[in-house]
Formats: sequence, C-alpha cells, structure tokens
Amino acid sequence: MAVNLDPPGELLPVPGVRVGTSCAGIKQQEFPDLTVIELAEGSTTAAVFTQSAFRAPPVDLASERLTSSSPRALVINSGNANASTGQFGRDDAVAVCAETARNLNLAAESVLPFSTGVIGERLPVDKIVAALSSAAASAQEDGWASAARAIMTTDTVPKAISRTLEIDGCEITITGIAKGSGMICPNMATMLAYICCDAAIDAQPLDQLTRDAANASFNRITVDGDTSTNDSFVVAATGLAGHARITSTNSPSYQLLAQAITEVAIDLAQRIVRDGEGATKFVTVRVEGGASASDCLDVAYTVAHSPLVKTALFAGDANWGRFCMAIGRAGVAGLAQERVALWLDDVQVAQDGLVHSAYTEEDGARVLAQDELVVRIDLGMGDCAEKIWTTDLSYEYVRINAEYRT
Amino acid sequence: MAVNLDPPGELLPVPGVRVGTSCAGIKQQEFPDLTVIELAEGSTTAAVFTQSAFRAPPVDLASERLTSSSPRALVINSGNANASTGQFGRDDAVAVCAETARNLNLAAESVLPFSTGVIGERLPVDKIVAALSSAAASAQEDGWASAARAIMTTDTVPKAISRTLEIDGCEITITGIAKGSGMICPNMATMLAYICCDAAIDAQPLDQLTRDAANASFNRITVDGDTSTNDSFVVAATGLAGHARITSTNSPSYQLLAQAITEVAIDLAQRIVRDGEGATKFVTVRVEGGASASDCLDVAYTVAHSPLVKTALFAGDANWGRFCMAIGRAGVAGLAQERVALWLDDVQVAQDGLVHSAYTEEDGARVLAQDELVVRIDLGMGDCAEKIWTTDLSYEYVRINAEYRT
Repeated sequence: MAVNLDPPGELLPVPGVRVGTSCAGIKQQEFPDLTVIELAEGSTTAAVFTQSAFRAPPVDLASERLTSSSPRALVINSGNANASTGQFGRDDAVAVCAETARNLNLAAESVLPFSTGVIGERLPVDKIVAALSSAAASAQEDGWASAARAIMTTDTVPKAISRTLEIDGCEITITGIAKGSGMICPNMATMLAYICCDAAIDAQPLDQLTRDAANASFNRITVDGDTSTNDSFVVAATGLAGHARITSTNSPSYQLLAQAITEVAIDLAQRIVRDGEGATKFVTVRVEGGASASDCLDVAYTVAHSPLVKTALFAGDANWGRFCMAIGRAGVAGLAQERVALWLDDVQVAQDGLVHSAYTEEDGARVLAQDELVVRIDLGMGDCAEKIWTTDLSYEYVRINAEYRT
Repeated sequence: MAVNLDPPGELLPVPGVRVGTSCAGIKQQEFPDLTVIELAEGSTTAAVFTQSAFRAPPVDLASERLTSSSPRALVINSGNANASTGQFGRDDAVAVCAETARNLNLAAESVLPFSTGVIGERLPVDKIVAALSSAAASAQEDGWASAARAIMTTDTVPKAISRTLEIDGCEITITGIAKGSGMICPNMATMLAYICCDAAIDAQPLDQLTRDAANASFNRITVDGDTSTNDSFVVAATGLAGHARITSTNSPSYQLLAQAITEVAIDLAQRIVRDGEGATKFVTVRVEGGASASDCLDVAYTVAHSPLVKTALFAGDANWGRFCMAIGRAGVAGLAQERVALWLDDVQVAQDGLVHSAYTEEDGARVLAQDELVVRIDLGMGDCAEKIWTTDLSYEYVRINAEYRT
C-alpha cells in the first residue's frame, strides 16, 4: 500500500556504531523485534521525545538518562509500547537496560530504552532478557538493515537511508532508520527514529541540531492526527571521522552537518508518511501568505486532518469546497475568505475565495488522480509559509486500525 | 446505518407557523429540496451561526437580517450550500429571498435564507424561483414532517420532535427539525436546525436562550471534527400561546421554556449523531474531574476525534491504550497520568493511570459490543465535568465521503 516507497538502498556502516537484532517473540515468533545500538565511548547523543502527557515509562527513563549520563547503548523493542504501565513499566525498562548493559559490559545508566507497539500491557521482560545476549552478540557495523526491520510494527516497508558529506576534508557517514505508519501527528508521532554519524560534535550544538531537524521533518508530518506515548528521535555522533570537533552552532561545519542530518530526517519522515496506514496518496500541504508560521501550520494541519478532505483525496474527487471548509475552521484570526487562493499542483482552483475563472473539474481531477500532489494555499495575509506532508484516508486505514490487535 | 434512530413520531403544529415544501430539482428530480417556514407577525427569532471564517453568503445575509429586521419567513434549500460563491452567492441568496417574499406578500428583508449541500457551486436560482410558488402555496401548520425530509442531504432518517409544556396555565407547543450527518463538529456543524414554538418572549431573552441551548446540544456533538460553512440554528416564538410575555431571563417562565427548548435541541443534536455518516455506535464521552470546563472539552473532543479511538470503537476492540493516548495528547496543562481513571459504562478500565486490577478484556469487550456506550474519564484535577456525543469511524464513513458528489 505504500506510496512510491522503495526498500532502503545500501546502508553504510557508521564507524563507532554497532547494531544487533534478535527475536524475542514479543508479538510473533521468528520475527526480529529487539534491537541494540551500541555507541563508541566518547559519542555524544541528543534526542527529542513525545509531548504527550501520557509519556511511556521508557521515554521518561531515556529522557532522564540522556541528560544524566553519556549514552553508550540504545535498546529498542517492537510489539509492546510499555506505555500506561506506571511503576511496573519503569521497573521493566530498568531491568531491560540492566541486562543490555551486562551483555555489553557497560554501566546500566548508560543504556536508553525505547518501546513501540500495543499500549497498556506489561512488557514481557523475560522474553526480552532471554533474547538480549543474541542481539548483543550479533552487533556489527553492518547491522542497520536488520534493525530497520526489527523496529517495525504496522510498517509495510523498512525505512532507512545513508549519506555522506565532507567536513575539513574528512568523509562523514550518516545512517538513519525510522519506523511508524499510524498514530502519526506533529510533535512526535508513533515513531522511532535513530540517526547515527561519526561526526565529532559537542552535546549542546548536537541538541540544537536535533531539535531543529525534528521541527523540519518529524514535526511536519501527519497521518491521522494522533500522537503516541512513545515517540522518540535520537541523533548520535561517535566523533571518529577525524575532523575538527564542532563546538558551537555558529561554525560552517555545524551548518554542513545540520543540513545533512536534517535532509536525512526529512527523508525518513517522508518515508513514514508514504507508508502511512492505508495511504494511497502522498500529499504535500503548503500554506503561504500567512501572518505567522503558526497560522500557516494551523491551516495546514486542519486541512491535513480533515476526514472530509482526506476522503476526497482518496476518492480523487476535486471537491475543492472541502478544502475551503477546512481552511475556514482552522481558527486563524483575521482570515478573509476573499483573499484566499488554492492550487492543486499547478492548477489554480480558487482565487479571491472563489472558483478561478479558468478552472475546470477536469484539471482538478487530473491532479487528484496522481498518487503525489501538492495542495497549495495562499492566505493573502503576510509573508510566512509552512509545508507539511500527509496522506489520504482510505478503507484500508479503517481496516488496519479496526483489526490491529485482534 | 443510523444507530437506534427511529423516524420522528407525531409532529405538532405550532400556532402561527406555516411550513411548505416543494421540489426544485437542485440535485435530484422528484425529491423535495425546498422549504419555506412562515412566521406570524409579531414573532421573535434568534439564531446562532457557524464560526467558520468561510461563512457562506446566505449565512451572512441571514445573520444581518436577523438583527436588522423582524424575520417573517425562512427559506431553506438542500443540495447546494451556496458557499465559497462570493458576491454571486450573495446576489443569488438575495434573489431567492425576494421571490419568497413576493410569494408570501412580505418585505424582502424579512426573509432569511439557508442553504446546505455541495460547496463551491453557484445556486441554481432559476430552479428555486420556479419551485417557490409551489412551496409557498403548500404552506400549512401541518407541514413539519415534509420539511424534516426536504432539508436532508446525506441524512438517512428525518430528524424532528415535538413536545408541549405549560406556562401560566397555557399550553405551549414546541416543534423542531434538524439535518446533518457529516462535517459535524462543535460550534455548529454541517447542520441546520429550526425550533419553533408559540411562546411569547422578547428578543433579548430568546437570544440568550438560543445560545445556551446551542451550547448544551449542537455544540456538544461531533462526527468527524469538520465544521461547515453553513451551520445555522434558529429558534422562533410566535407569541400566540396566551401566557404573560417573557421579558427577562430571570423569570420562572423563562426557565421552563429554556429547559424545554434545550431538551428539544439536545434530542435533535443526538439524532444527528445517531445518523452520523457510517455510524455504527452512539458514544457519550463524559470527562469529569477537570480543572476547567475547557480542559474537559479538550479531552472529550480529542478522544472523540481520534481516528484510532474511533476505529477501535468500530471494531469493538477494548484497546484502552488508545484512549490513554488521546487523553495524553489533548494538551491539558498539569495533567498527571497517575491520577487518570477510565470507565466503559460501568466497567472501570483504568485507575491511577494503570489498568484496574479487576478489569478483564471480556468486560471491556462486552461494553464495546453494545451499539451505545459511555466513555467516562476522570482527570483527577478538579470538579468540572462536560459531556459530548459522537460516533465511531467505519468503512461506510469512507465510502459515503469518497463517493459523495460522484
């Protein structure tokens, strides 16, 4: 069902990062569901986490350990989110980290836990502990492809990408993996994403880079408007590439690295949307002419979340009134419909709040028949613009989410 | 598909109100789509309208005329919303009102126009004008049942109710009709509702009564989170019942009338939800223990709008983690998951943010197998409570909205 989403191409090993997987049998036997990512000593790590008030215990633990220690390993399970599990869930996450640390000969508090899957059920710690030695033993620099598979839940295609860049004449390698296809919304959706590189960068600039990259990528996608309890995006840098260490956000090296990692994050975020549950279309919603970025985002997300817009996109029906309806209810102060314009790709549908004189239903239908399109809205209020990516709403979305768990 | 929704019972004539319908053939031939409601001289009328920034031209015109003149007639067409039509749409609405006034021998500005249906297409004024004489000629006190049908769009069941009450020993009759089943959201959805009575009440208290009734009814329902360009709720009182005129909101008579009209409005609002597009369940979401009413409503609407909650309701899957996810992302400041409790009807699912010790999946599944249920959430933060009504999200919702117009 994924929209123009190929499996990952070649994934490059990142010096200083070893990746291992194994089958704990959390939801299914014989499906890899446990991943360990080991980071070389001296690595710096940054992360952003879900803004849900119902943060899962592993998210709390990872967040605390990120600031109190130098992370050396990430342990990730799919199939169970260890969410809404309270102190039990925290104890379970602590136990999984301790066993991971024991296998890798690390301090327990240097291990960060991540979980994704069903909410509200206890983590099967025994199964995970039993599978950890195998995951740790299999850890190698070439393990990325299997990790991209092992973190999947309802994903239909593994999501990963590698790229390189040069700083100070040194080649830097970036490899990222991500999972997520439902419960996808701004401010961290049901998604996990890990980007590792061998750049040398201090913790403070890496933290800024990670926040900025998240805002340009994972915080600009939505499938169904739902935000999960477990979302996490981690960026780790092992520092082994050999260039002069990046110590501030002002250096040219920082700019180069930030741009490359942001591009990787956007690529991964778009892969998540392309694999959105039941998606048949990949839709870019661009809102321009806004008085503020938040006005633009309010309109973009209202359009992208509207079930009536999403079903019209699914049907390929150029029912442009539904776009107007969604723009109108976005709650933007001072919005004047007589200044609003709308395009579907290059086809101008509305001008001054009315159907454009040259617009034909055939032109609209031609664009909506495509599996990728841009909905562009001009609010006629100012100079701000924002862009997000989303999907349509299909029978398949309902089927997947009505049948999940059963 | 409607959930436990019977056609209206006996509809009582309201002294001073005459209702007529005819077939203008706007979308279909031989289906009544035009309604005229004539109000006796001396009637008072109040209304609330959509909060969309894309208000349709007839909504603007009705709103202006409501305050500048004494409305004597309402003219309502289904099949075309006359929305996103700009000055053309306004001219069309003015023309329809003028022709209605001519047929009823009234001043043009005393006619209020209402339209519902497809957005962004010009109103077929010629067809409507040709059918108006027949609608006006058929106007009678017994015309409510046919009007309840003529205002329908994707509705599957007409929605109407009558009741009586006694004030000062005088019997007062209230009859209301409503339409709407998709694009239903707080603050006036794609819905039209008209409640007429023969009470005698001044404009100011009737206005207050109408706003309060809307807040307790039509502003407490959601099907899909989408708000339309055309929503309108009108309350008219002909003053012919014979009791002492109500001149303020402080009188006991006001309280009696307000309670009766609010009950009628709630009944009509619930009928709209029961006929929600593709609905297989009628769900009450009650949030209590909130620090404020708006916190309670934020949580209630986030739960009611969540596609993952709605598909779980459709599937009858007691996937209670999805409720927690939705509560967690509602954006309530200070929410502590360890104080949150959740019930499905009488079954306590969660306590202190964790699954309740006595909860079993069988108990949850039993409640979710019902076609009516209450989701009750206690935030553990204060004494405020709010209640809204919603539906599930089914294949049929997608089918209806993917096929509408085509």
